Amino acid sequence: MKAKVFDRSEHVYRNDAFVELVKDAVRFFSGTPVHTLPPPERFSGTGVYALYYTGRTGLYGKYGELNRLSYGFPIYVGKAVPKGWRQARLADNPGDQSNELFSRLRQHANSIKKVATSGIALSDFMCRFVIFEDAGSDMIGTIEAALIKLHLPLWNMSLDGFGNHDPGKGRYEQAKSDWDVLHEGRSFAAKCKGVANDRKTLLANINKHFKMLQKT
Amino acid sequence: MKAKVFDRSEHVYRNDAFVELVKDAVRFFSGTPVHTLPPPERFSGTGVYALYYTGRTGLYGKYGELNRLSYGFPIYVGKAVPKGWRQARLADNPGDQSNELFSRLRQHANSIKKVATSGIALSDFMCRFVIFEDAGSDMIGTIEAALIKLHLPLWNMSLDGFGNHDPGKGRYEQAKSDWDVLHEGRSFAAKCKGVANDRKTLLANINKHFKMLQKT
Repeated sequence: MKAKVFDRSEHVYRNDAFVELVKDAVRFFSGTPVHTLPPPERFSGTGVYALYYTGRTGLYGKYGELNRLSYGFPIYVGKAVPKGWRQARLADNPGDQSNELFSRLRQHANSIKKVATSGIALSDFMCRFVIFEDAGSDMIGTIEAALIKLHLPLWNMSLDGFGNHDPGKGRYEQAKSDWDVLHEGRSFAAKCKGVANDRKTLLANINKHFKMLQKT
Repeated sequence: MKAKVFDRSEHVYRNDAFVELVKDAVRFFSGTPVHTLPPPERFSGTGVYALYYTGRTGLYGKYGELNRLSYGFPIYVGKAVPKGWRQARLADNPGDQSNELFSRLRQHANSIKKVATSGIALSDFMCRFVIFEDAGSDMIGTIEAALIKLHLPLWNMSLDGFGNHDPGKGRYEQAKSDWDVLHEGRSFAAKCKGVANDRKTLLANINKHFKMLQKT
């Protein structure tokens, strides 16, 4: 077979409608009701969520200040995708999507409860979330990425590890995450034996992050 | 503050334009030129790709048959996202995107070369890819998911591990991937000490997969 001539431009996809679509979904997100963490009722579905810190003192007091008049500055943005999404096995079966978004928010609430002695209280967190159904669930990753780029949440960008799960047997040689260094209390984090970042560096990163946020 | 009444329907996002947009990008993908693996020239950009097997014998000979008249059945679909995408650090800086899509395709070519004694030849693989630039790069995950759902590629769905990287120091207690069990030759896989799936089960999975593909 004759070798094809390579022309990069034949491989570039352009569609301006996409940018508008993402903006529409982000605007919808920003207009949804804010709830406690976890939300007051279990609900079905998968989607995207943001956590807001409203405490006025401590490590994240600055967020409480920034969010004083409206929920504009999430400390964390995440997603709950349909089970088996990577493998496409169950993605279009709504019955299998069960309560993944709600479960994820409840897991986050549990993480925060476990580290209460580190100076953060669950009652200082609120959440916002959007459910994407059926074919719309393919948007979840895109909207999560767009919200992170827009809001630059501290726990996504400058203090890694909040969303981590137990790494599990055979993987405890890795280091404790940055988040777990500042927020001790999760039992799986205590098992991680690798060399973690030091507290001082992490506190400096948080300071830098707030300076960056104030400029935006 | 008064507790808000919970109403799930306020949180559900609907936009039919999205479905059409994904179809448009998938159709564009299916119309791009097919190239050797890796493609003949280094190129810049991030995006989505598919690998096609065209050999007519061995474990994947069925794919060679299915792809005889057109490249309709990828054995693997993957993506190369902008560096720092999760953290939103560099996502909009085209200079930093460098050659990630090309590099990923070259890594795959190297993986296949290393396992040549397992009965697959690099010359039996072809690839197709689409580059997403600037804000369009937020579509990458969505289009990858759509292509996987559409084509149900064997190495995404029924034989895990082809796209794996070296798990690295402290993580070799995990099992060798299914792909590495059938395709020995990657040095990092040989270091993995966990209990892997047995060859017989994996071959049965491949058979089941081809039966499923023929029904689609």
